[in-house]
Formats: sequence, structure tokens, C-alpha cells
Amino acid sequence: MENSLTSSYTDSLLIKQLLHTPLQIRPEQEIVSGSRRHSYGLFRQRIGKLSSALSSIGVRFGDTVAVMDWDSHRYHECYFALPMMGAVLMTVNVRLSPEQVLYTLNHSRASVVMVHRDFLPLLDSVRAKLEFADRFVLIGDEDSSLPASHFVGEYEQLLAAGDSAYAFPDFDERTRATTFYTTGTTGTPKAVAFTHRQLVLHTMAGMAALTSPREKGRVHRDDAYMPITPMFHVHAWGMPFIATALGLKQVYPGRYAPDKLLTLIRDEGVTFSHCVPTVLSMILHSPLAESIDLSSWKVIVGGSPLSKGLAKAALERGVDAYTGYGMSETCPLMSFSRVDPLTEADDDLDAELARRTKAGLPLPLIDMRIVDEEMRDVPRDGVAVGEVVVRMPWATQCYVGNEEATAQLWRGGFLHTNDIGLITQSGGLQITDRMKDVIKTGGEWVSSLEIEDILSRHEAVRDVAVIGVKDDKWGERPLAIVVLNEEEAGSIGPEQLRAHVGEAASRGIIPRFAVPERFLIVDMIEKTSVGKINKRALRERYQNV
Amino acid sequence: MENSLTSSYTDSLLIKQLLHTPLQIRPEQEIVSGSRRHSYGLFRQRIGKLSSALSSIGVRFGDTVAVMDWDSHRYHECYFALPMMGAVLMTVNVRLSPEQVLYTLNHSRASVVMVHRDFLPLLDSVRAKLEFADRFVLIGDEDSSLPASHFVGEYEQLLAAGDSAYAFPDFDERTRATTFYTTGTTGTPKAVAFTHRQLVLHTMAGMAALTSPREKGRVHRDDAYMPITPMFHVHAWGMPFIATALGLKQVYPGRYAPDKLLTLIRDEGVTFSHCVPTVLSMILHSPLAESIDLSSWKVIVGGSPLSKGLAKAALERGVDAYTGYGMSETCPLMSFSRVDPLTEADDDLDAELARRTKAGLPLPLIDMRIVDEEMRDVPRDGVAVGEVVVRMPWATQCYVGNEEATAQLWRGGFLHTNDIGLITQSGGLQITDRMKDVIKTGGEWVSSLEIEDILSRHEAVRDVAVIGVKDDKWGERPLAIVVLNEEEAGSIGPEQLRAHVGEAASRGIIPRFAVPERFLIVDMIEKTSVGKINKRALRERYQNV
Repeated sequence: MENSLTSSYTDSLLIKQLLHTPLQIRPEQEIVSGSRRHSYGLFRQRIGKLSSALSSIGVRFGDTVAVMDWDSHRYHECYFALPMMGAVLMTVNVRLSPEQVLYTLNHSRASVVMVHRDFLPLLDSVRAKLEFADRFVLIGDEDSSLPASHFVGEYEQLLAAGDSAYAFPDFDERTRATTFYTTGTTGTPKAVAFTHRQLVLHTMAGMAALTSPREKGRVHRDDAYMPITPMFHVHAWGMPFIATALGLKQVYPGRYAPDKLLTLIRDEGVTFSHCVPTVLSMILHSPLAESIDLSSWKVIVGGSPLSKGLAKAALERGVDAYTGYGMSETCPLMSFSRVDPLTEADDDLDAELARRTKAGLPLPLIDMRIVDEEMRDVPRDGVAVGEVVVRMPWATQCYVGNEEATAQLWRGGFLHTNDIGLITQSGGLQITDRMKDVIKTGGEWVSSLEIEDILSRHEAVRDVAVIGVKDDKWGERPLAIVVLNEEEAGSIGPEQLRAHVGEAASRGIIPRFAVPERFLIVDMIEKTSVGKINKRALRERYQNV
Repeated sequence: MENSLTSSYTDSLLIKQLLHTPLQIRPEQEIVSGSRRHSYGLFRQRIGKLSSALSSIGVRFGDTVAVMDWDSHRYHECYFALPMMGAVLMTVNVRLSPEQVLYTLNHSRASVVMVHRDFLPLLDSVRAKLEFADRFVLIGDEDSSLPASHFVGEYEQLLAAGDSAYAFPDFDERTRATTFYTTGTTGTPKAVAFTHRQLVLHTMAGMAALTSPREKGRVHRDDAYMPITPMFHVHAWGMPFIATALGLKQVYPGRYAPDKLLTLIRDEGVTFSHCVPTVLSMILHSPLAESIDLSSWKVIVGGSPLSKGLAKAALERGVDAYTGYGMSETCPLMSFSRVDPLTEADDDLDAELARRTKAGLPLPLIDMRIVDEEMRDVPRDGVAVGEVVVRMPWATQCYVGNEEATAQLWRGGFLHTNDIGLITQSGGLQITDRMKDVIKTGGEWVSSLEIEDILSRHEAVRDVAVIGVKDDKWGERPLAIVVLNEEEAGSIGPEQLRAHVGEAASRGIIPRFAVPERFLIVDMIEKTSVGKINKRALRERYQNV
């Protein structure tokens, strides 16, 4: 009797399988985008037409198709249609410099570019240097007129000529489905790629982790979803795949503007989103926010740490905000906060804020370790810190075409997050800092995140970054860079901020030597193209200030 | 650039990966069994010891180990330890006849049998004819003395000598993990087998489906789980894998007795179980049930259809009872009721009972069709019926060693459930009958389940089965076989029952010709070894009555 069982049918894990259940259980469920509004049933017809139309312009199995668009129903269609026909979806980060956009289009060998009218100037600035792209599809967005002869057609017109009955083929589950580029803060962008198998497993594990909490900090089948992290960025955290598999109502907001997002939350009954802290802060501080009921809205905050201050501001508006932890290389989801208390003793505001700002509980199947520099496990005592390293069936296999970076990422057989963290008894993972952001002072490590978190809870502080700057005596010392709320900008200065951090030190929350001597009050803190604090740029700018 | 991405580490889907998250997030969570009570952390140590001990008695990769036990922490340990060491767990259906048990032990080539003291007479009656089993482990359950010289040891004593640090190896995800036998109602038992990959995917899809509903009919991370379908039966519906991956408190009840189950629900705070309708009825009708608060208990009912009458009786006690649909060949989960209403208009008792008794919404990734005899899809209009056929990545590949039955199961490339059903607009799948139980009368099909359901709602009816019996004029006619509640047995007869069904026909719920002429009142309705109504036996017994 053989011990390895072979299959009676092609049992590959393929993205098309994510559509079976929602199309059966909620075919009338809505997808909203701009003035457009259609059902899941029509969505299925449209992706058939899209793939049929792309076939007719020569897109074949294994070809890469690049997309430059705002967050729209079209992007959602490309998430499914392109991989399901065996092509690779390449999501262009339109916030990169033209040189970087050119690099990524050529490195990915994208042969077709689908481009929204708003990004034509960006594309035109690099088009002459494109090495592989030879077909261009205009995303006209209400206006289908073609601006130049190199366009093979406009999105809606192509669809109108397509065949909704297009038969999506079966193939190997390890076929590449998506590719995109991580920029980090150094070097040339690195290509990350994911297979059908990985995206299906990420979707299944993400669904289970999102929906299994008891009450708070959970998603359910009757939620209405709107992404507020760009769809070019790590598949909008994979959430459009999860939302579709769950059969949720979906709302695509186009170009982000706080008032538009708020209006959509109100008018479309959005209950579930995800964004970076900066965007949540902008939404909560928008004047329009005061007149809109946000008490049914839950939002997963990631990309950068959710501070206790921002979590508190969200809670005060009734928003169920909590942390999602991940990175491009992990598809990206790794963990979510546990928001529900485990014991009654834990059921107070401080404990809740601590839970909401922790990275929390890993998704199913993740083998997560906290290790020292020799890859030995540190104790799981809520005190010992080390680097977070992981294995999971949906982790990226490699940086495409970059063996050196791949070997570095996977050294010792585990994926290195470059994050420093600890695991507490009940709250799961807590990230204490990035490896490169931790401040080394007098032989000790000081977490820049902890000081930022303390400052974020000062009522006058709107944004904050803490970096290490060189110091002759101590090696490095922390420097706090702070943006104040407009109404309080005049009355608060470095003295008050230092006293606030000093008070936390006197309560034993951080060591005495972690209190910065210097506080810079600025108008704005520089962010990366995906909205994270750009600490590398800050270190360069403020190293000698 | 190659399009198929290979792996940087062994990314096989293996049962051991289900333990990563619970061991990290809830190492102190409890597993309760008899007088025993231990943590997930200790459970992890015990499965290391068990595998180490089994290695020391010669169990190797690919060997089959048979288990004969009540539902216990030991069975739970075998669910993990055996597959994780590369062996195959064979779960013996101890309710089968000795001849059938012998057949399954020999057919599976089990070389080791782990047997609870209570099943020694059964094992002894067939031991001389075992072809492969040559090592026996006693499950002493508090008493470790070995009754005979052919035992290599007692479970707890073997564990005591084992090594908790046993290293579970990586291997191909298509390695067989479990095997068991379906008895159906005809022929010799057929072997069904599942791989690590299938069980992991079943666990992930089951988690997502169980936890994603909004409010009613859902499981969450803080539930306490107790199985009430035997662990030898389709891995207790795969629920122990799901409960463990979610990190739930788990309670194993040993041999089933209604009062013991009720006591455990009360004393251990059990909130989530699953059972067949007969067992739920026994629990609800137990005198002890009156004094126990069941309002936190949810129970998934499957194996046989949950009738509206039983669902109503459960609801009246505050029990959140709903339907799970599946079969041995699908690991077994295929769908759960949608209990939450989709619209306010649907929010009444009748609509809720209809939802709770429907098979409901398929798990993610399932391709479910309703087809006619030529495999053409019937309309999804809530009226047209056909056979339910499915594909899913965790469906069994074959009946091991039975090509003819395998070909029959997978004809046309889909797995045939032999169930007749329809798909409604909002409620998902509704099973109307088994292919072989549907009653063919005068050229029409009458659903035996619909008539049973109507009779189940008569307050005097405790159990009911409807079968087709030969009729010279119509081909077949329905015969209703009814068990009455003790207190009403004297006052109700066939006349009242016929009037009750006739009333449903006059309201258009069933056609006139579906009303049985004959009602037999009996003391007991025969069940199969797993608690389903044995319609084959009933047809034989009552064909000429």
C-alpha cells in the first residue's frame, strides 16, 4: 500500500478557487468604486472579459502585466484576472521616483502596462527607456479617448469586446501570481514575488486570524470593506483577496483624501479598513470626522507601529483600532493584536491600549521565534528581546534575481524580519524596535519606539520620531523630533516634553538614560513612499543639527 | 526569469504546523479528560514522548497504528503524534461487528494496536486472525497492569519512558496521515485516507468557516470545546484539529452518557460541541438538562439532518444548534448553516429554523455544483433539485485499494455526494434527500426528509423515519415510522399524525401525493454504528409489513 496519495483531480491551490464560495453564497453582494456599483456576479463576468481581452492583445501564460492605478474596482479585477489566466500581476509603486519606476518595470520584464490617465506624465517620462513593455492599456476612468497611438485600447472598451465565458485554466500551484518591489530605505528596489499557493494559504490563514477573536478586533462575514493602504503595496496587505473570499461588500476609494474616505465610511456603511498610523491620524483629525459616526468602524493599523496615543484617540471616537504586523516578504500578514481581554483583571483602558498596540498573535501555521545573534531562542518571559525570525508557507522564497539579499533574508533557514521584539505571556508579540533604529547608548539598547510611544500620549503631540545621533561620550544619544498640534504649538516647548518623558522614567517605564536631552519641534516628519517614518532620511538630516 | 518559484525552506503543509500558534499564544490553555487536566505545553511534551516511545517499539515512517479508545486526551495525542512522526493513524470503529473490525485492521495493515481495556474482549475475539498487527499497547486508564503477555506496554508507562524532545521530521505534505473505514449501509467497509496537506487545508478552511459568521452559529477563540461525535468517526469531524489550532480549552468526555455530558458542559464551561441529532435529542430530554443552563452552548448537528422540531427544542433551551454538512470522503466538512439573518425581514423564528436546518454555506475553496444525471448544472433558483457534486483540495483521493468504488465516487471529475439538494438565494445549500432514500411515486420524487421534518415538529413525536415501500400502482409509497414521547404515547395515533402531515400539504409545503397513507408507531428506530437512521435496515424490515 503506497503511503503517498495522488490526486483524482487537479487539486492545485489556485486563486480562482477563492471565488467559488462568495459567488455561491453572495452573488448579489456589491462592489463600489467611484460612481460604479456592481455585483460579485458581474465582477466574475468582468474578469472573464478582461482576461479574454488581454489574451487577444497577446498576453500569455507567464507574461507580466504592470498596473498603475488608484485603488479601484479595476485594480480588484486585475488582482484576480491576471493571475487566474496564468499571467503575473506587477503592481507599480506610483510614489517612487521616475528612475525607480523605470527600474522596476524593466526588472520585472513587464510587457504590458495598464495605466490610469493621472499617471501618464510619470509613464511618459520613462517610456523611451522601457526595455520590454510594448503594449499600453489606458485606464480612462469615465473618458475612453486614447491620448496617443501607442495605446492598444482603453480598459472599459477592451472589456466590452471581451468574452465573459473565458475559461480560466488549471496549472501548477507554484506558478507565480504577483510581483512588486520593496523599497525599504536603502539601495535599489528588490523584487518580491508570490505564487498562487502562497496567496491562497495567506488568504486562508488571514481569514481565520481576522475572524476568530471573540468580540473586539475582529472581522466577520457581514462587514463592509474599504482598503486605505494602496493596492500597489503588498496587495493592499492581501485584504482584497480575504474580503472577496469572505463575500464582503467592498468599497474602493480611488485617490485617498480624508474627507472622501470619511464620506464613504458614512454613506457606504464601511465597517472594516486598514491603514498606516499617519492616515488614521489624518482621518481622525479631519474636521469632517466630528460629524460622522465612526463607532462601527474597525481599522487595522500597520506599516509603522500604532502608538498608544493614536489608539486612545481612535477609541475615544469609538473606532476599533488595532495592530497588524507584517512585511512585504511575508505577503504581508504575520500577526494581529489580541484586543479581547483574557481575564477580568485585564479589562481596563491601559491594558486595552497595551493590547491594541502590540503586534499580538501570529496567524495559524507561522513558526515564530525570537533569537539572539547566534540564532538561539531567547526566553519567552516578556522581558528578553531578540530578533523576530519566522517560517510560514506563504513567505516569499527569494528576492527575484538577487541571491545575495535572498541569502541574507533567509540566513539560518528562517526569514529575518530585522525587527526586535519580545513575547509576553498573554499578549503575544511586542515589537520593541527595528534592528537599525534601536539606539545604542552607553552599552545599552534603547527602543526608539518606546520613547515615541510615550511622547505620542502627550496631548500636544501630533507626530513624533526618535532617532539615535552620534555622541562622543555615549556612542549614541536619542533625539526626539516632534510635530505639535496646531492649537497647542505656541504653549508647549522642549521643557514640557522632556518633563513628560522624564515622568515616565521616574515611574520605571523606561530607564533614566533613555530620556532624550534634546527635543526638536518641526512642522513635518518625512515619510517614505508608503507612509512610514523615514528614519534613514531623518538620521541624515538631523545627525549634526 | 522562471515562472515557477522554488522554496527556500521545506514549506510542506504538515500537521505539526497547526501547533505553532496555540503553543505560542495559549501555552497554559487546558485539556481536560476524565480526572486528568493538563496544559497545551504539557500536551506538546506528551506527544514527543508518545512518538519517542512508539519509535522504540519499532514504529517507522509509513507504518499504520490502530487506536481503539473512548474520546480522550490520549486519542487527541494520537491525532497529532502519529501523523507527526510519519506514521498513519487508523481509527477503529469499535461499534462495528468483530468481523468488520477484523477486516479493517487487516486491510489497513495496522502493525500496532493501541487498545483501551474496555475493548479487550472485542480485540481478543479477532486477535488470532490478525495478519499484520504484532504489537499491542494497553490503554489502562488509571490501571497500568498488563492483562496478557502480548502487550508491549501500557500507554502512560510508555510515555513515562519516552523523550519529550523527540524531533518531528519534515517530509512531503502528500504523506498519508490518517485512515478509517466508511461503513455506509451496504457492502464491506471502504478505506478512506487523508494526507497532511488535506488535513491542514481542511483545518484552515474549517476555522475560517466556523469563525466568520457575525454573531449566531459561530465559534471563536475563547470557546471551550467538547466533541460528542466519536473520535473514531472521520477524525471527530476534524474538530480536534481545529480546536487545537485555535487554542481552545478542550474537554474529552470519555464514554458518552447524557448526564455526564451535561455535567461537563456545566462544570467545565463547555460552549462548543458537535453531535448527531439522536444525541442532541437525548441530551435535551435528559431530566438533568432541566437544571443546567445551556444558553452558552452551541452545537453543530450533522451526520443526519437536523429537523426543525429538534432545532426548535434546542432554541427553547437557549442552545445555538445549527447544521454541519459533510461526509467521510470530504474529511468531512463541506458546509455550515448561515444562522444570522441577512435582512430584518428574515428575523423571525420560522426563518431562523429554516436557516438552522439548511446545510448552508460551503467552506472556502469548495467548488459545489448541483447537477442532473448528465452532470449538467440545474438552475440555482431554490426549486430545481439535483445531485450535489463537489471538488475541494481536501477531498479524499480514493477508496484505498478499491478502484471500482473510486471511479464511481469521482465520475465526471467531481466527487459525488449521493445527496439530492438545491441552492437557495440566501440560505445556500439545502439537502432534500439521499439519492437512495428519495421516494419515487407516480413518476415524482418525494423527499423522505421533508416528511420527517414535518412529523418532527409534532409535539408528540420523538423520532421519525420515512421510507419508500413498494406499491403496485404508484411504484413506491411513503411509510412513516414514528417513536412517540412517553407522556403522549397513549393519546396519539396514526390518524392525528396523518392529519398533521395533511395540514402541511394543504398549506402547500409538500404536494398532496407526498402524504403517507400509513404510519407505524414503534418503540425504537434502528440506527447505524455512528448514530444515523439505518434506512436500509428499515426498508428490509418494513417492506412487507
